[in-house]
Amino acid sequence: MANITKKVSWSSRTDESAAAGEGTPLLNGSEQPRQLSGGGTTFQIGRFDTLDLEEEITTEEQDSARGRPKEIPHNEKLLSLKYESLDYDNIENQLFLEEERRMSFMGFRCLEISRWVVCGLIGFLTGLIACFIDIVVEELAGIKYQVIKENIVKFTETGGLSISLILWAVLNSSFVMLGAIIVAFFEPIAAGSGIPQIKCYLNGVKIPRVVRLKTLVVKVCGVICSVVGGLAVGKEGPMIHSGAVVAAGVSQGRSTSLKRDFKIFEYFRRDTEKRDFVSAGAAAGVSAAFGAPVGGVLFSLEEGASFWNQMLTWRIFFASMISTFTLNFFLSIYHNKTGDLSNPGLINFGRFESESMEYNLYEIPLFIAMGAIGGILGALFNILNYWLTIFRIRYVHRPCLQVMEAMLVAAVTATVSFTMIYFSNDCQPLDQDHTEEYPLQLFCADGEYNSMATAFFNTPERSVRSLFHNQPGTYNPLTLGCFTLTYFFLACWTYGLSVSAGVFIPSLLIGAAWGRLCGILLASIKPDASIWADPGKYALIGAAAQLGGIVRMTLSLTVIMVEATGNVTYGLPIMLVLMTAKIVGDYFQEGLYDIHIKLQSVPFLHWEAPATSHWLTAREVMSSPVTCLNRIEKVGTIVDILSNTSTNHNGFPVVVQVSNNDEPEKLCGLILRSQLIVLLKHKVFVELARSRLTQRKLQLKDFRDAYPRFPPIQSIHVSQDERECMMDLTEFMNPTPYTVPQETSLPRVFKLFRALGLRHLVVVDDENRVVGLVTRKDLARYHLGKHGLEELQLAQT
Amino acid sequence: MANITKKVSWSSRTDESAAAGEGTPLLNGSEQPRQLSGGGTTFQIGRFDTLDLEEEITTEEQDSARGRPKEIPHNEKLLSLKYESLDYDNIENQLFLEEERRMSFMGFRCLEISRWVVCGLIGFLTGLIACFIDIVVEELAGIKYQVIKENIVKFTETGGLSISLILWAVLNSSFVMLGAIIVAFFEPIAAGSGIPQIKCYLNGVKIPRVVRLKTLVVKVCGVICSVVGGLAVGKEGPMIHSGAVVAAGVSQGRSTSLKRDFKIFEYFRRDTEKRDFVSAGAAAGVSAAFGAPVGGVLFSLEEGASFWNQMLTWRIFFASMISTFTLNFFLSIYHNKTGDLSNPGLINFGRFESESMEYNLYEIPLFIAMGAIGGILGALFNILNYWLTIFRIRYVHRPCLQVMEAMLVAAVTATVSFTMIYFSNDCQPLDQDHTEEYPLQLFCADGEYNSMATAFFNTPERSVRSLFHNQPGTYNPLTLGCFTLTYFFLACWTYGLSVSAGVFIPSLLIGAAWGRLCGILLASIKPDASIWADPGKYALIGAAAQLGGIVRMTLSLTVIMVEATGNVTYGLPIMLVLMTAKIVGDYFQEGLYDIHIKLQSVPFLHWEAPATSHWLTAREVMSSPVTCLNRIEKVGTIVDILSNTSTNHNGFPVVVQVSNNDEPEKLCGLILRSQLIVLLKHKVFVELARSRLTQRKLQLKDFRDAYPRFPPIQSIHVSQDERECMMDLTEFMNPTPYTVPQETSLPRVFKLFRALGLRHLVVVDDENRVVGLVTRKDLARYHLGKHGLEELQLAQT
Repeated sequence: MANITKKVSWSSRTDESAAAGEGTPLLNGSEQPRQLSGGGTTFQIGRFDTLDLEEEITTEEQDSARGRPKEIPHNEKLLSLKYESLDYDNIENQLFLEEERRMSFMGFRCLEISRWVVCGLIGFLTGLIACFIDIVVEELAGIKYQVIKENIVKFTETGGLSISLILWAVLNSSFVMLGAIIVAFFEPIAAGSGIPQIKCYLNGVKIPRVVRLKTLVVKVCGVICSVVGGLAVGKEGPMIHSGAVVAAGVSQGRSTSLKRDFKIFEYFRRDTEKRDFVSAGAAAGVSAAFGAPVGGVLFSLEEGASFWNQMLTWRIFFASMISTFTLNFFLSIYHNKTGDLSNPGLINFGRFESESMEYNLYEIPLFIAMGAIGGILGALFNILNYWLTIFRIRYVHRPCLQVMEAMLVAAVTATVSFTMIYFSNDCQPLDQDHTEEYPLQLFCADGEYNSMATAFFNTPERSVRSLFHNQPGTYNPLTLGCFTLTYFFLACWTYGLSVSAGVFIPSLLIGAAWGRLCGILLASIKPDASIWADPGKYALIGAAAQLGGIVRMTLSLTVIMVEATGNVTYGLPIMLVLMTAKIVGDYFQEGLYDIHIKLQSVPFLHWEAPATSHWLTAREVMSSPVTCLNRIEKVGTIVDILSNTSTNHNGFPVVVQVSNNDEPEKLCGLILRSQLIVLLKHKVFVELARSRLTQRKLQLKDFRDAYPRFPPIQSIHVSQDERECMMDLTEFMNPTPYTVPQETSLPRVFKLFRALGLRHLVVVDDENRVVGLVTRKDLARYHLGKHGLEELQLAQT
Repeated sequence: MANITKKVSWSSRTDESAAAGEGTPLLNGSEQPRQLSGGGTTFQIGRFDTLDLEEEITTEEQDSARGRPKEIPHNEKLLSLKYESLDYDNIENQLFLEEERRMSFMGFRCLEISRWVVCGLIGFLTGLIACFIDIVVEELAGIKYQVIKENIVKFTETGGLSISLILWAVLNSSFVMLGAIIVAFFEPIAAGSGIPQIKCYLNGVKIPRVVRLKTLVVKVCGVICSVVGGLAVGKEGPMIHSGAVVAAGVSQGRSTSLKRDFKIFEYFRRDTEKRDFVSAGAAAGVSAAFGAPVGGVLFSLEEGASFWNQMLTWRIFFASMISTFTLNFFLSIYHNKTGDLSNPGLINFGRFESESMEYNLYEIPLFIAMGAIGGILGALFNILNYWLTIFRIRYVHRPCLQVMEAMLVAAVTATVSFTMIYFSNDCQPLDQDHTEEYPLQLFCADGEYNSMATAFFNTPERSVRSLFHNQPGTYNPLTLGCFTLTYFFLACWTYGLSVSAGVFIPSLLIGAAWGRLCGILLASIKPDASIWADPGKYALIGAAAQLGGIVRMTLSLTVIMVEATGNVTYGLPIMLVLMTAKIVGDYFQEGLYDIHIKLQSVPFLHWEAPATSHWLTAREVMSSPVTCLNRIEKVGTIVDILSNTSTNHNGFPVVVQVSNNDEPEKLCGLILRSQLIVLLKHKVFVELARSRLTQRKLQLKDFRDAYPRFPPIQSIHVSQDERECMMDLTEFMNPTPYTVPQETSLPRVFKLFRALGLRHLVVVDDENRVVGLVTRKDLARYHLGKHGLEELQLAQT
């Protein structure tokens, strides 16, 4: 994912993002870096790793930071501390409870209705965006291919085809340059499909700037440029990210970027509610991309949520429906078939007729074998892409280098395509009812067209469709073989470039090509078996196998494929294929998204604790000692704690002295850095409250207004006098944080943490005294490696 | 649901079930009944309510209990204490942790593989059962209709049709009598579709005998009898229950009923694992019934699970796939099309051709209107059935009465059908390629058949199919109107009878009938619009609306319908219709399954705490005082506590005295009744352990062998000497039970309880002393009524 390739470019950017508050390292990294002596060797956090961090904290160090080494050492056994966690557990402090208690039954009913309205809006806007992307891509690509085609036709006879090649390469490169520039220089997080980022967000990791308006704009423009630029990419993956941004924006009823606050949906301004809407947005994105509303819901659930709530699921479903519906409606207008809603989705696999789709028992082993091939090819793709990404992290981290790489890929893609078409002599007769949009004659006889060109000289979506549906005999095996091989490497090289693009369609295309090849070969082995007459069936199976082998989703992908084909008959084979591809692929390498998440060192929590982790207890896992606050604490202490850049804690247990001083301090609550910042900003000090009796009480609204970009502590001025004041945290802290005893086993802690989406879990002894704090990175640190349980190293990188 | 109607019959049964251990009241009811003074009036648990309970405990009271009143007072604001909870939280005691720590990585891998194997087996067996039911029903119904048809043909001319009627009624009644007898006398829990029971089980409520082998046998035979007996029922619903029973049996690797222990899968002998498999079984059942593997997974998730785990979902999916696959394969052999797997499911909606299935934007409002009609009709159905069920609980509680009612319904169904056919004069020409299996000519001209008979004189599945697919004009509107009306009341009367039967197919049939009627009327209003040419489309929408209005599922039902039609095109309208039906229906009355769950007074936990319950805290909600045990406790004390029938606690916090006697007692663990029973049975006393040094240590295996039918305390003999011994609970208690402080709000407690599937949640003060215990019924007690938050009354009924 581009996130990684941007690691350095972020720090070299202007101060704009640092000033914006979010994403500044002060908010990042929950706990202090610890020296680990886990694997025998001690890992010392080096100068390189903390560069990003310190550069943005202390401006005086910026100059020295500029002189960073060219090569960033990368260690995949690393867990980054720079990512903040999201808090999916409501902070039930007094203010919150008071508000909830004041609210009538009707109030809750209205809230519920507004949730549905927001989901409807999310679906509508996501559908509109998908529609916009589709139409623009369609129009621009149409112009591009028309121009090139005319040029080729012109030069075919006269023999100056190299000029056509140059034209093609230049056109592609310029579009891609445009796309790469906006991504690399303006919003690096918009690179790639965005699916890994959304997975992380739903998992509870705050990826900076991932759901901002600017990201959306760059993403949409970027994806148009890269698809029109002829890269081996799809426009479907980015829809998921777009939907998520739309959801995050709409649900908050304001835009921080545009500095507009519509004063609506204020209740939804917290992580819990926002996450729910982002799930809906991601689902709406999938739904628009593939015309698969149910697939969208399942995608959100499979990739994101852990706690399944019926009402939430229905809302997500609603958003998905509206999204498909909107897209279909507007596309039906665009295609002059107003009101015909039967052809959903950006990618449409076309109509599979039931007659040609029958399959028989003896084909099942074939399907499974194809699933295995998909798994192996997928793993190969992932391994190559992994190496490539490591290379990019090390050497291609300057934005200008990234733009140049993207342009190079675009030019190479055009050149390779052209060469393949040029040297191919697979001529096919041009039927009356041909489906080719831009049939290239080249050196074929009149009334014939170059078959290789249908695969290369086309948007990938159309190529997929023609591989699924063209008549048997439209492609010869050599064409398909060459196409598979070249497209495989092109797609692999392309994924991870600094452009907005998805990997779904290239995967489908590779799979469809070798699947069709399998179909043709099978038919040639046993030409009398009429059941094998249709290679399109095998193209579909191959596409599913390849996609499954690369991304490793099963349930949601099955439904997406079934909904995209519009035919349930093939549900069972697709399932079998995806399951096989996953099992085989997992044997070699993880899924592509997981690889990229790992390479970003994101503290991602999987579904369950590693199986062999029962011997670990909360005592070993937790961070300690913990910085605790008193219920009534001196302002100076709080400011000092918050300003301590070496710790950067985000949550503080609040303790209270029971009766006399000999007694130990008991846990009585938990307060977050963000809450303390708001309290300091509004100067909610005990002494001031007494002197200014008329001062209005701090309300939940004040916290909501500051959400989610709480200012850094440096921006808050506290005078020396004020430092001596006291702050009463009682009203604001969460009085009932979840706690576990020290002896609790890791799987148990993990289950509690994951099921409730916690951010901090307090570890107490049997006297209810705080002994430690478990956060996300304490749990994500342990993972199953080749040799049993492994412990990742923590670093501020 | 039949569960209710059986409430009394259970107590009149022999002692067999009491001796079997499970379902005995000693294990039931987690806490003592409390007198509530919630709503101003105090509810005194009456004599009637405790009848069932005490009868089985004290045999000397049996005679007095026999003289029970004829009328059982029923109060729907009641929460029964007789249901035990399941424990979906692992008991991580020392034994368990030691076992887990001993297990290697390979061990866990093997476990994972055996989970997949078990799921495969579940799918296979469920598919086989579905196949068996289908073939037997098909054959028997074929014979029955053939016999009656011949009889009718014989008497049509000669004028003795009343003899045909009697033959029909007698045949139906005898089949139904057989089905009702085995259900009413042998296994009352097998009545109905079993979906409410499975919902409860997955929710965490232990419904006695619901997953036993005997239940399965009775269910399978019962459903065959009731479908062949011509009742307005389907064979699909019971498949879900059957799948669940298969899963519960297979996953345990033994059958307690058959007294066979295969010594495999011993690791799975606990509630957590068993629940996972039961989810898979239910999904496999849906999958077999409707040919909808994805729908099955969604059903399990929507209706059951709360914690979504990716691996688990895949396993469930696998079981579903195998189930459909098995069913298809064997049915393809039966239908002489070996190897053709394209026609899945027990109910098959037939092939919807894409051409006739197109819809347009202006039809959307029509669909929504039909959804609203479905919602209203569904609510009406539910209200009528609710009254009927109340009536049945009060007056029809003897098994023989129940059998007679079932026979009456069967006879009435036959009579009404016959009368409708007799008086109908809707004659249709018999095409060459007619799809009617048993076309009845009756008084029609030669070459024609009676159209009413296709609806009535047929298995319901075939009737649905003909409503979907028959040519336009096959039915006249009057026929459809009459059919809808009569079938509506028949189906409503039938549901809740003491027979095994589902409500899915009758609902679809009612809906398809009025849907087709709508289609015909629309076409007659605007006959030129070719889009309305196919009333089958409206039949499908009507069927979805009616089913949605009755059962109120949305996501899973959409997928089930889409998978059953085999065509994705209609996904969007079906969704809209189901959503509308749900919203409209919910305005009037709950879903049918929820009604029956409520009438059984099951402590069912919904997805979230009532919205307006933030003012309640754990302190108000919890049960207190709590019976605690010391870590080293006297055997006599334990026996006395367990024998105390007035409390019947199931979980006991274990406390420990810290240092000296002045200090308060700290919580140090939680132990279950079932564990104590096993300890007492094996006489794990401190003194004995010293004297018999060679005695083998109690192992996890001993607990697993006793699971799930732990013996009652009465069956365990403890001598007077042994009463003086001590028991050390350290090794066996769960040392890290989840706790919450007293101030925790109800929604927070609820979330923790529900997300983790807890059974006991200990409430502690800030010194970690036990102050109360929250169990399922404490949370289920609060629900949103018409006038805000209501509190249900607790009773041992």
